[in-house]
Amino acid sequence: MSAPDATDRQALSRSQPLKRRRWPRTERRQARIRSVLARRQPDLTVVLENVHDPHNVSAILRSCDGVGVLRAHAVYTIEEPPAGAFARQTSASAAKWVEVERHKSLGDCFERLRAECFSILVTRIGPGSRSLYEWDLREPVALVLGNEMRGVSTEARDLADGAIHIPMAGMVESLNVSVACAVCLYEAFRQRTAAGDYELPKLDPDHLRTLEDDWLLR
Amino acid sequence: MSAPDATDRQALSRSQPLKRRRWPRTERRQARIRSVLARRQPDLTVVLENVHDPHNVSAILRSCDGVGVLRAHAVYTIEEPPAGAFARQTSASAAKWVEVERHKSLGDCFERLRAECFSILVTRIGPGSRSLYEWDLREPVALVLGNEMRGVSTEARDLADGAIHIPMAGMVESLNVSVACAVCLYEAFRQRTAAGDYELPKLDPDHLRTLEDDWLLR
Repeated sequence: MSAPDATDRQALSRSQPLKRRRWPRTERRQARIRSVLARRQPDLTVVLENVHDPHNVSAILRSCDGVGVLRAHAVYTIEEPPAGAFARQTSASAAKWVEVERHKSLGDCFERLRAECFSILVTRIGPGSRSLYEWDLREPVALVLGNEMRGVSTEARDLADGAIHIPMAGMVESLNVSVACAVCLYEAFRQRTAAGDYELPKLDPDHLRTLEDDWLLR
Repeated sequence: MSAPDATDRQALSRSQPLKRRRWPRTERRQARIRSVLARRQPDLTVVLENVHDPHNVSAILRSCDGVGVLRAHAVYTIEEPPAGAFARQTSASAAKWVEVERHKSLGDCFERLRAECFSILVTRIGPGSRSLYEWDLREPVALVLGNEMRGVSTEARDLADGAIHIPMAGMVESLNVSVACAVCLYEAFRQRTAAGDYELPKLDPDHLRTLEDDWLLR
C-alpha cells in the first residue's frame, strides 16, 4: 500500500480524534484494556468522605484499580479535595483508570448508590459494627472511608445500611485509611475470585465497547 | 494502711523504675496488654528492605501491630532509615508496640530468620511468584517488602525461599508498599483466625511475663 497523499492525510486527520492519531495504541494495549474491562466490578465501590491526604487518595485509587472498581465516589463537604490526587496525569496513575464521581452532599451520593442497589457500609469500629470477614462482599457494596482524623461522619453512620470493621489484635486501634480500604477491597476480591466473579464480564457489551474506545484514548 | 513515711518512700523510689512510679498503669491497661500479648504471632514477620517513606513505614508498623507481629526487621543498605518512623514517640505510634530489629546486611537478616525457622518470601510479581491466596500463611513466614521505587533487591530475590504477589485485575500493576504489606498480613490474619491461632498464646509464659513488665513501662 502506498503512503497517503496530502489530501488523504487531511481527511484522515479530520475523521479521527487528535489523541488517537498522535498516540497510536498497539493491539497488545487494546487486548490489555479489554481484559481489564472484562474484570471490572461495577457492583463494588468506595466513597471517600473528606479523605484529605493526597497519598492516601492515590493509594486508595490504586487499590480500587487493582480489584476492579469501575467508579469511586467522593464527597468533600468540610475540606477541598486534595490537589492533584484525582488528576489523570500519567498512565501509572490509577486516577486515569478509576472514574471518580464527586457529589455535593452525602445525601446525594447515597441516593445515587441506592438507586444502583448498593448496600452502603461505613468503615468504623463501634457498637453494631460487624467484622469484615462476616460480610458477603459479593453483594453490591459501597464502603465509606472517612477522614484521617475524624473517621466517617455521624451523618454517614446514620444514613448507612451498616458498619464494617477490620478486626485488630494489637495495641493501636486503627489502621491507615488507605490500608483499611485495601484490606476490605481485597477481602471482596478474594470472595469474588473464589466465586468466579472475575471470569465473565459484568458490564454489558455496549458499555464495554464504549469504555474500551474511551480508554484507548487515555 | 497508713501512708509510707519519708524513709519508706525513698526505699520505694529506689526499688522501682522511675517510669512505673511516674505513670501508674491501671488494671485495665494491664489486662489489655496481656490480651494483646496473648495474640502476638512470633511466627509472622516482615522485613523492610530500604523502604524509605516514613508514612509507609508508619502504616506498615500499624498493620504489623494490628495482626500481632511481635518483631519486624529492617535492612537499610542503600539509604538511611526514615527519620523518626521507627521512634516510639506516642502510645498511638505502633513503633511502640512492634519491636524493630535492624540488620547490617540482608545476609545477616535472613540468617537470623532462618535460625528461627521462617520461610522468607519476597513480595514481587514475576516468574515463579505465587499468588498470596495460594500460600499457607499459618506457617512461619517473613515477608520482604522492597523500596518504593526499586522493589525488592536482586539479592533478596536470590536469597529468598520464594516470591509472593497480590493478584491485580487493573491497569496499574503495583500497589502502594504499605497497602501490599497489609493485604498480605491480613490474609495471614484471616487464615490464622480461621484456624484458631489467636485463641491461645504462642509465646511461652516466661516470655509473656517479661514482655508484659516491659510494655507496662512504655
